[in-house]
Amino acid sequence: NSNPVPTPTATPPDILRCAYMDIVVTDLAASREFYVDILGLVVTEENENEIYLRSFEEFIHHNLVLRKGPVAAVAAFSYRVRSPEDLDRAVEFYTELGCRVERRAEGFTKGIGDSVRVEDPLGFPYEFFHDVEHVERLAWRYDLYGPGALVRLDHFNQVTPDVPRARGYMEDLGFRVTEDIQDEDGVTYAAWMRRKSTVHDTAMTGGNGPRMHHVAFATHEKHNILYICDKLGALRKSDLIERGPGRHGVSNAFYLYLLDPDGHRVEIYTQDYYTGDPDNPVVTWDVHDNQRRDWWGNPVVPSWYTEASPVLDLDGNVQPIVVREEPSEMAVTVGADGFSYTREGDVEKGFKLGDTL
Amino acid sequence: NSNPVPTPTATPPDILRCAYMDIVVTDLAASREFYVDILGLVVTEENENEIYLRSFEEFIHHNLVLRKGPVAAVAAFSYRVRSPEDLDRAVEFYTELGCRVERRAEGFTKGIGDSVRVEDPLGFPYEFFHDVEHVERLAWRYDLYGPGALVRLDHFNQVTPDVPRARGYMEDLGFRVTEDIQDEDGVTYAAWMRRKSTVHDTAMTGGNGPRMHHVAFATHEKHNILYICDKLGALRKSDLIERGPGRHGVSNAFYLYLLDPDGHRVEIYTQDYYTGDPDNPVVTWDVHDNQRRDWWGNPVVPSWYTEASPVLDLDGNVQPIVVREEPSEMAVTVGADGFSYTREGDVEKGFKLGDTL
Amino acid sequence: NSNPVPTPTATPPDILRCAYMDIVVTDLAASREFYVDILGLVVTEENENEIYLRSFEEFIHHNLVLRKGPVAAVAAFSYRVRSPEDLDRAVEFYTELGCRVERRAEGFTKGIGDSVRVEDPLGFPYEFFHDVEHVERLAWRYDLYGPGALVRLDHFNQVTPDVPRARGYMEDLGFRVTEDIQDEDGVTYAAWMRRKSTVHDTAMTGGNGPRMHHVAFATHEKHNILYICDKLGALRKSDLIERGPGRHGVSNAFYLYLLDPDGHRVEIYTQDYYTGDPDNPVVTWDVHDNQRRDWWGNPVVPSWYTEASPVLDLDGNVQPIVVREEPSEMAVTVGADGFSYTREGDVEKGFKLGDTL
Amino acid sequence: NSNPVPTPTATPPDILRCAYMDIVVTDLAASREFYVDILGLVVTEENENEIYLRSFEEFIHHNLVLRKGPVAAVAAFSYRVRSPEDLDRAVEFYTELGCRVERRAEGFTKGIGDSVRVEDPLGFPYEFFHDVEHVERLAWRYDLYGPGALVRLDHFNQVTPDVPRARGYMEDLGFRVTEDIQDEDGVTYAAWMRRKSTVHDTAMTGGNGPRMHHVAFATHEKHNILYICDKLGALRKSDLIERGPGRHGVSNAFYLYLLDPDGHRVEIYTQDYYTGDPDNPVVTWDVHDNQRRDWWGNPVVPSWYTEASPVLDLDGNVQPIVVREEPSEMAVTVGADGFSYTREGDVEKGFKLGDTL
Ligand SMILES: [Ca+2]
Ligand SMILES: [Fe+2]
Ligand SMILES: [Fe+2]
Ligand SMILES: [Fe+2]
Ligand SMILES: [Fe+2]
Repeated sequence: NSNPVPTPTATPPDILRCAYMDIVVTDLAASREFYVDILGLVVTEENENEIYLRSFEEFIHHNLVLRKGPVAAVAAFSYRVRSPEDLDRAVEFYTELGCRVERRAEGFTKGIGDSVRVEDPLGFPYEFFHDVEHVERLAWRYDLYGPGALVRLDHFNQVTPDVPRARGYMEDLGFRVTEDIQDEDGVTYAAWMRRKSTVHDTAMTGGNGPRMHHVAFATHEKHNILYICDKLGALRKSDLIERGPGRHGVSNAFYLYLLDPDGHRVEIYTQDYYTGDPDNPVVTWDVHDNQRRDWWGNPVVPSWYTEASPVLDLDGNVQPIVVREEPSEMAVTVGADGFSYTREGDVEKGFKLGDTL
Repeated sequence: NSNPVPTPTATPPDILRCAYMDIVVTDLAASREFYVDILGLVVTEENENEIYLRSFEEFIHHNLVLRKGPVAAVAAFSYRVRSPEDLDRAVEFYTELGCRVERRAEGFTKGIGDSVRVEDPLGFPYEFFHDVEHVERLAWRYDLYGPGALVRLDHFNQVTPDVPRARGYMEDLGFRVTEDIQDEDGVTYAAWMRRKSTVHDTAMTGGNGPRMHHVAFATHEKHNILYICDKLGALRKSDLIERGPGRHGVSNAFYLYLLDPDGHRVEIYTQDYYTGDPDNPVVTWDVHDNQRRDWWGNPVVPSWYTEASPVLDLDGNVQPIVVREEPSEMAVTVGADGFSYTREGDVEKGFKLGDTL
Repeated sequence: NSNPVPTPTATPPDILRCAYMDIVVTDLAASREFYVDILGLVVTEENENEIYLRSFEEFIHHNLVLRKGPVAAVAAFSYRVRSPEDLDRAVEFYTELGCRVERRAEGFTKGIGDSVRVEDPLGFPYEFFHDVEHVERLAWRYDLYGPGALVRLDHFNQVTPDVPRARGYMEDLGFRVTEDIQDEDGVTYAAWMRRKSTVHDTAMTGGNGPRMHHVAFATHEKHNILYICDKLGALRKSDLIERGPGRHGVSNAFYLYLLDPDGHRVEIYTQDYYTGDPDNPVVTWDVHDNQRRDWWGNPVVPSWYTEASPVLDLDGNVQPIVVREEPSEMAVTVGADGFSYTREGDVEKGFKLGDTL
Repeated sequence: NSNPVPTPTATPPDILRCAYMDIVVTDLAASREFYVDILGLVVTEENENEIYLRSFEEFIHHNLVLRKGPVAAVAAFSYRVRSPEDLDRAVEFYTELGCRVERRAEGFTKGIGDSVRVEDPLGFPYEFFHDVEHVERLAWRYDLYGPGALVRLDHFNQVTPDVPRARGYMEDLGFRVTEDIQDEDGVTYAAWMRRKSTVHDTAMTGGNGPRMHHVAFATHEKHNILYICDKLGALRKSDLIERGPGRHGVSNAFYLYLLDPDGHRVEIYTQDYYTGDPDNPVVTWDVHDNQRRDWWGNPVVPSWYTEASPVLDLDGNVQPIVVREEPSEMAVTVGADGFSYTREGDVEKGFKLGDTL
């Protein structure tokens, strides 16, 4: 990589996990219908401008903030750190990187105390906090569960032009890569990286960015995800289903992608694997492997490759987009010039929809 | 309908259910791998030319015959009738219709006794039998179940040019329609019809015919169907998945369509509803309703509309194809002239993939 | 059998299926909480004395009537018949048997027309009807489903002293036995019998009777049943779980038994097998087979054998109880004199709880 | 606690997770049938004296060693540590505690390198290792999955007389308690403690010890566990099911307990919750809460409380048993003097089976 983010000498903060996403929505009532009435996230508290939501197994104040605003965008990707001292480390780490850093002892959102927000080297608004209000963990409250209950925040997914550059920076921040997608020339199309012991807390998807690709919540079982589709059908909102349900190749999880009323993408996800050992084997997928993104070879709709949400700087302005210079995954796998295989070495192409449209 | 099949004065046979399909395959070993090794159907008996297969809850000799032959085609759609006397009724019924009828006291396949085969008014090879060899119902043999165990033969699906004509004939034969797809001009695109108390024993799909669209086996639960996809992925045979998995609008069942090595289409299906009352409400779907064939609005791949298996006459020759004259469902719902909606009355089109390709 | 119910010369009514149970409850609000708030049955209509409930896939007015009254009991086991003329047949059939018969053109309950109620030879209040108000089949209304949605009424279960006598009468009425439990001396402990193509529309359980053992509703999948247990736990009402969940030997279905606030027993049930062929193999279980009632060998709690609901005569008075003379299933399989085996031929007993209590 | 294990000044090893259990079985062929043929664990390698088994998502050499020997017992509870240096820390930690310590550079089992085994202060044979042979992670090999596939080793469970003493020692070793069971007098009956981010890597169950209560493997979904019961029924081995299936109160997981041919207890477990935050709320259950061990209030069979496997010292001799002095959980919750409630404050007892036996 010709333009790496320099490795700070400072110790990075000890990140526990992705904790919440702070998103701007343009119609709070429409978003409430989507996240609360349809998806069944639990309202911790709300007012006319903000709704704080959590999943059933969560004990911290929120996993998602819906914030009314003029432009649909992401205000923060927020990670919880192990101790209050890790906030000092976050300040040092990003200051050394020359990033804009803002610390607020009272927090940027309700329910959360001392917090650090930064504009990170990739242009994303990252937050770190430790102090947080505990709320009831509703894990045992089956009387409140719906058939598609969301039980955990699982991960973020970010779009950035240069994946190896992002990976280097994230490894300095303490993340470990669990899986990635590459081609035979060594181009990296995406990488998954974790702090907690799942496949990821966030992933870096190659594309024009910084943008937010999706935020993912976990269910207990696959039928919970299928139910969400069934419910959207009953509500005549099946056009909110963008892609899936299906089985990922990467992560081996079962998935579904939805679009909220502003087009923010939400994944519903279940059953990836334990990754907590330091020598956890990294899985590298060939970008031409037609089962990498859907194990069943079902096509990825183009919008999934091209659309994503803007992210904000610390003043609330949309961050400008940098165009990816390397090949796009969609271009190398779909359409006229694209090529994918189901069985490596097959001469015929195996891309399913390509045969028929 | 300008060209109806006349209603016979003879009493039709009292059909219990679709019982088995007799199909010709070109490579018996490849078909065995598909139906036995991958799908896990149970071999009742086999020899170098034929394999007799059944599902886990079946107690009659077979639900599927794989027969080695030069051209992949369907030799018979076979129904079980209530009593031996119903074979006499079948002979009378079809003789009155001027159809070719052949009766064999020793049956056309192993494990089955006195049988009647006909070339029906639509050109399909239909069989009726009552006497059958009982075999072990393996319902309780969980030690033999795989994760995707097929427990019942559920239904057939036939392609025929003139659906109302087929429907009239099938109603004369004692079938009842449970659901259909029509347009605002009264064109019928497909109809589902039953003898047993499920949504169908067979369906008539409008298109160039006579051809066999698919044969469907039932699983107990949805995860069984998802597993079949996972297994095909593991075997690097995901290109055998033609469509789905998904939730049908019609029938409300969960489904998956596979293609066997000869391109015979097999559906895996679970959880439709009870239809056994005589006044069971018929559900009519608008052909433009984007959720009619997939409740989640996921697109139907074109091959699903266009491809189907030839059927044989009683001499084993392929029946000639008659072209459908009315509009095709694919044409009126997909592509340049097509239109579908997710919410009736929406001015914008709701067809998901149409937005993106 | 020394005291058979005589076979009438009259043709029996053509019964389609068990359709609803009419039960008397002593606290309508408490029953509403159980059946509507907890189990999620759908209210078709209600007033201060009655609640009419149905399951999600039902299109007739109701599957259960809760009727306020002084004594918890069953007012009717109601079956739907194929045609209005079958009511005449019911009148003739039971009149010939010397039973008390009452016919009401306007029906005995809301939503149902011309109906016949009888005090049958076993002392049970049986009802037959054909005319019924159609209501919305909510099969596709996934927005209304809870995680434990009940989708069909599956069967009744009745307690009667002399099972072979009951069986003979029910066969005259057109039922067919699918499974039974016997011992080596030919004593029958229970029999399952069907009209629709499932394992049963009702079962006869040997014991002091006439009493109602349970009414059973079906879910789509096993996890739906597990959820009902989880919800009862969350509501601190787990003591309403009497037995299960488990896998039945008989019927091969997955089950759970609950007790409503009056002690009426409700089964939740899923996934038995097709029985619609006239030569469907009858499965006879040995009463000493420890897996007959629970395939996993888990013990049947004694209350399940001993407790049941009274039934009413046509005047609303409780029917007197006749004591069973043959051995009780509990006595021959549980406790000091009881003996069960897991593996036929084992000398040691295999009854699980018996080893430990 | 009057007799605490002293806190060493040495830094404890950084434990990643429970990694494998090394158990002695008396009939290797019978154990192979149970663990491989019935439960479907994957054989990494085997010889005439040992079988090395792993779960589907594992990438280290084994999660279970079956070792042929004269007395059924546990030879080691083995934990993986973060780095080779952590073995030095383990030596120091236990040496300071005065424990017998043995280090073998070549490991105690195949597939594992430098290892430390100790006789810990509670009398358990604990092992620590880092170096390990990587094997194929079979997560994507759905062609090899059975319907009840075991995907991870989840936890151990140990029986020890003095739970607070055990807890203090384990906290010094770096474990954190997630849940426990106490009574109103402050007696602790059991405690669950973790290193990885699940409810536990091991639990301490109050009772005569040191003994091994069980070893637990995880499945993806609940139906996988139900299938194992169904399969045992089909094999006429349902008496290997000791307790369950059910939903735990503690951990909120779905569970099943089996007994292997030597009586070693194996739990099958799925879907507890994330516990990785340092302030993860500890859940304390009242020992009289009838839903603490089974959320549905189903009774715990007495053998589950009383039976457990011996453990070996480093010479292979069985460790002597110390009797628990505090009240037993069984005594205070089951039987003549026992009392449990379903609803706190209810005067009547809520213990289900107690009403009926
Ligand atoms: Ca139980
Ligand atoms: Fe994702
Ligand atoms: Fe079909
Ligand atoms: Fe039942
Ligand atoms: Fe456990």
